[in-house]
Amino acid sequence: MEVTRQNFKDSLCPIYSAIEEADFLAIDGEFSGISDGPSVSALTNGMDTPGERYVKLRKHSMDFLLFQFGLCTFRYDQSQSKYLMKAFNFYIFPKPFSRNSPDIKFICQSSSIDFLASQGFDFNKVFRSGIPYLNQEEESQLREQYEERRSQVNGAGTPSYISPNSCKGPVNVPDEHKDFIGRVVEKVDALLNSSEKSKERFIQISKVDEEERRRMEQQKYEREQEEMNDAVGFSRVIHAVSKSGKLVVGHNMLLDVMHTIHQFYCSLPEELDDFKEVTMCVFPRLLDTKLMASTQPFKELITNTSLAELEKQLKEKPFKAPRVECSEGFQSYDTASERLHEAGYDAYITGLCFISMANYLGSFLTPPRSHISARSKLLEPFYNKLFLMRVIDIPYLNISGPDLQPKRDHVLYVTFPKEWKTSDLYQLFSAFGNIQVSWLDDTSAFVSLSQLEQVQIAVNTSQYAESYRIQTYAEYLQAKQKNTNINRKWAEDGWADASYKSAGMTSTCSRAHNRSLTGKRSLSPTQEDQNSDFTGIADSNWSNYSNPETKKIKRDGMLLCSFRPVEGTPSTSPTEAEAESQEADTWPKTSANENKGRQEAVVSTVGRTQPYRSFPGISERKETSVVFI
Amino acid sequence: MEVTRQNFKDSLCPIYSAIEEADFLAIDGEFSGISDGPSVSALTNGMDTPGERYVKLRKHSMDFLLFQFGLCTFRYDQSQSKYLMKAFNFYIFPKPFSRNSPDIKFICQSSSIDFLASQGFDFNKVFRSGIPYLNQEEESQLREQYEERRSQVNGAGTPSYISPNSCKGPVNVPDEHKDFIGRVVEKVDALLNSSEKSKERFIQISKVDEEERRRMEQQKYEREQEEMNDAVGFSRVIHAVSKSGKLVVGHNMLLDVMHTIHQFYCSLPEELDDFKEVTMCVFPRLLDTKLMASTQPFKELITNTSLAELEKQLKEKPFKAPRVECSEGFQSYDTASERLHEAGYDAYITGLCFISMANYLGSFLTPPRSHISARSKLLEPFYNKLFLMRVIDIPYLNISGPDLQPKRDHVLYVTFPKEWKTSDLYQLFSAFGNIQVSWLDDTSAFVSLSQLEQVQIAVNTSQYAESYRIQTYAEYLQAKQKNTNINRKWAEDGWADASYKSAGMTSTCSRAHNRSLTGKRSLSPTQEDQNSDFTGIADSNWSNYSNPETKKIKRDGMLLCSFRPVEGTPSTSPTEAEAESQEADTWPKTSANENKGRQEAVVSTVGRTQPYRSFPGISERKETSVVFI
Repeated sequence: MEVTRQNFKDSLCPIYSAIEEADFLAIDGEFSGISDGPSVSALTNGMDTPGERYVKLRKHSMDFLLFQFGLCTFRYDQSQSKYLMKAFNFYIFPKPFSRNSPDIKFICQSSSIDFLASQGFDFNKVFRSGIPYLNQEEESQLREQYEERRSQVNGAGTPSYISPNSCKGPVNVPDEHKDFIGRVVEKVDALLNSSEKSKERFIQISKVDEEERRRMEQQKYEREQEEMNDAVGFSRVIHAVSKSGKLVVGHNMLLDVMHTIHQFYCSLPEELDDFKEVTMCVFPRLLDTKLMASTQPFKELITNTSLAELEKQLKEKPFKAPRVECSEGFQSYDTASERLHEAGYDAYITGLCFISMANYLGSFLTPPRSHISARSKLLEPFYNKLFLMRVIDIPYLNISGPDLQPKRDHVLYVTFPKEWKTSDLYQLFSAFGNIQVSWLDDTSAFVSLSQLEQVQIAVNTSQYAESYRIQTYAEYLQAKQKNTNINRKWAEDGWADASYKSAGMTSTCSRAHNRSLTGKRSLSPTQEDQNSDFTGIADSNWSNYSNPETKKIKRDGMLLCSFRPVEGTPSTSPTEAEAESQEADTWPKTSANENKGRQEAVVSTVGRTQPYRSFPGISERKETSVVFI
Repeated sequence: MEVTRQNFKDSLCPIYSAIEEADFLAIDGEFSGISDGPSVSALTNGMDTPGERYVKLRKHSMDFLLFQFGLCTFRYDQSQSKYLMKAFNFYIFPKPFSRNSPDIKFICQSSSIDFLASQGFDFNKVFRSGIPYLNQEEESQLREQYEERRSQVNGAGTPSYISPNSCKGPVNVPDEHKDFIGRVVEKVDALLNSSEKSKERFIQISKVDEEERRRMEQQKYEREQEEMNDAVGFSRVIHAVSKSGKLVVGHNMLLDVMHTIHQFYCSLPEELDDFKEVTMCVFPRLLDTKLMASTQPFKELITNTSLAELEKQLKEKPFKAPRVECSEGFQSYDTASERLHEAGYDAYITGLCFISMANYLGSFLTPPRSHISARSKLLEPFYNKLFLMRVIDIPYLNISGPDLQPKRDHVLYVTFPKEWKTSDLYQLFSAFGNIQVSWLDDTSAFVSLSQLEQVQIAVNTSQYAESYRIQTYAEYLQAKQKNTNINRKWAEDGWADASYKSAGMTSTCSRAHNRSLTGKRSLSPTQEDQNSDFTGIADSNWSNYSNPETKKIKRDGMLLCSFRPVEGTPSTSPTEAEAESQEADTWPKTSANENKGRQEAVVSTVGRTQPYRSFPGISERKETSVVFI
């Protein structure tokens, strides 16, 4: 169901009841862009900590507009053993609703806009018919404005036809205007003493008795309430989702969640921990299908976790296409005629993926079950863990607890002249076997060695080098923390929010898990997460993260530990890398700037060449991929 | 004629010849917004110097996208005594043309987008079919990229099928890849020694003889040239306009000119004088119909200079609707069915306005003439003077010479608590008769007194005031210059471009006309401008600027001085203010922030009230207008 400014009010009741009756909700957002600053490869560095990643996304992604929101509600019908779904595709636009409303500015990124245009996205519908919204602060301000005006008008028994400014004492009327004002006063006096009902010139002035005045004020009050509801607009839908407390499913949903909170609730907090807290208030239960698909027992079975591919694979063995039907009176989506990147459709197939994967978990039960409820304890290990794009050793952002803290003792921080390319780094470390490069900027990168004992050798041999410098990851962190402190000291806003920051600082920068949760925070770290064998793994070869074996598990309701998400993201094969690059709405293609100095091998071929992303046989991550022109 | 990405290439020839044959060109642009920072009232303060205004517009308006460009060419047909016009309405969008092209980010302002949407603007056409463009720097970079690649491929006699990187010496192949590379080398060797023509896996490799190679290279070169032309795209139209040297007419065209140069030529220079220089290179002859209509002899006859109203008035006596016909094969615009704010249409009626006004000048000749050529000397006084929105005492920005330097001895700079409203300022200065207030921000404003001798009294009486402070305009300038110097000293980019700035500094801040033009600049200030009786006028009452009388003037070609633009903008009557507010694409309505504390009189009326802009009979400027809610 397409929802615009025109049918929004009439759709609210059906939307509310769809949320109310649902077993779970799936969401998706389309944005006007991804990064207003760094290239996507810099925005998603493979060695980002969750805190660093959050800070970058908050800084460089939030000025884009979430202009299409998909909400798909799924209700399980026990009697028919199938899901009934209702899909809503909302167009969103911050149309200023009055002279005094905020005049929002948002950024558009050409590549994102161009991509959506190529998918047939209807921008006219966004800009002409988008539903407005207010965040909570704007809503309060508007409410106060209305209140203030009403109290001014009604305050101290002043009848509403007397100018509120009159209580401020006599207004000084300049000599040259006295004549004019005098004449106006005479006309108003004449009106009050005459039998005419009203008189119009620029302002209409009417006589009313007490009863009529009350009635008019009541009308005005009701009109204002309606105006206010109209202004709050789409935020009311998100409030309903939030209040329902239902499981909210998304695919690669970190940016969706950030944008949703930013646009319809409040500006995002500076620190990750505060963001987690806010998120848990707004969406108490989240599940990311991309993270789920990248985790045992799915990781082994699924070669490509991009949404469209995932949906296809989850129809095939060992999975089963879920039984989902469109509710009566609702538009159905046909997965055969793909409408990818329409938010409503993406939310729909995200829901399908979730159902397939959830049901697959039932096959491990004794006896096996073909349907697993969205409330099943089997799903708890996947709750509130949002997929982290392209981080090498931290698969997810843990919204309801502390993040994984991989050891990075095998990682070197290397600085070098800006002419250097990836090949120069391979050359430099040629003696150390396989390495992995994560570019930070033109003159620095992280280099992961496969052998921990080589780290000190590399650092030592670089001591007399002039053109480059090698530091351990620990040294890098120390220097960074020092810089952060200095910058903080000289930040424009002084020490205003220093206390607010301190907790986050610790969690971002400390490598051991020693962050003490402040009393203010309500996060309850799960013991499970800390039990992970992650710290042990980091000592071994980075490419050999162990995959805890899948055990047969018991019925719903029993405590199950074996689905703990697996550390390390799945290795990327060329096919995967290419398919993933199709998710261009989320991560558009490399731009000119980010490729600067990255083209380590330019192979000229005859005729038009195909983009080619990595050498077959070399397990290479995107950030170090070879670009052929 | 609508021009999009699809028909752009085919339209280029007709466009070039239309420009070539034209007597003058009219242009108009539509943007995605106006101000990304300050409110419009702060962006267009009534006391801005031309330099200050330029700096603000450059800083706060250039990140919006010019996404529709109207070009209307007018050729006078002597035999038929009428103009033949060709209108082009271009949709513009920076579609990334390849992986390596710049990924432009631009801002959208909700109020502007909403206004255009309400006018039926087709955003889908912009985003799906907009013509791409490159500025000159991007064009050179692209050209260099192509050159470099070609010289790499062809350099030192290296045949094109050899990887260009091979000249960099042997590439280090890690042990574990040696097998794979070895196998590839074997296969290529086998191919070269076989009778097969090509072999495909991920890269197609073909054998070619010398002649075939040349032919392929030629084909490739031609394809590259075409790709490059496609990428330069719409900028080619602007280049053609520029090269033609023809008179370019616009309405309130400062922002159009700034955006056009910024988007299709180069980032705008920091200083106004450098901008003037660049502008004269790109558009050697400009004429602004809003400035023309605000100047004698039109000023007295035209009550409203907004484009739509102006066009209507210029059809009535004493003016004559111009004889303009659509050229064969071109879409005609009907002024009866207004398509305002479509750039092509706006350019068209701007042209009509220009013709009417130019012809009207002919009535002053002896004998009178009904047609005045676009090349007539009668028009020279209006050349290169761009209308300055809402500046009280400087009607235009003089692109080809130094700007007018009004004395502001009767102006006070007042700072006060942020709770103050305009009424508080009126109260404060109630003893001084009529005043004029120009808000700077929440806590400061300029107050113009009507009597020069009151200035010192006002400053003296404020010496012991605690809540507010009054300074003369001269003191304000001194403090500002001091601050600017301090800021410059600590600017992030250090002293890098200090020399670049120094000339502009002088012109912005010196009150006497003592700016010495540096040798670098090619501006030739017209003696006429300096002869203005402007400095004299500033001493007298601000509301009594004299209107130099219109003298009967002689034939084309004679030197005419009496059309010197008149100092002081025309006083704004309520009707005018309202009509002008319809130009909402250019100056959208007041937003919440800018109204903060500005509502000095909130009159509650029964029922829905009309926006009401100023007291009839009070000659009040917009920045001090009364807002009734």
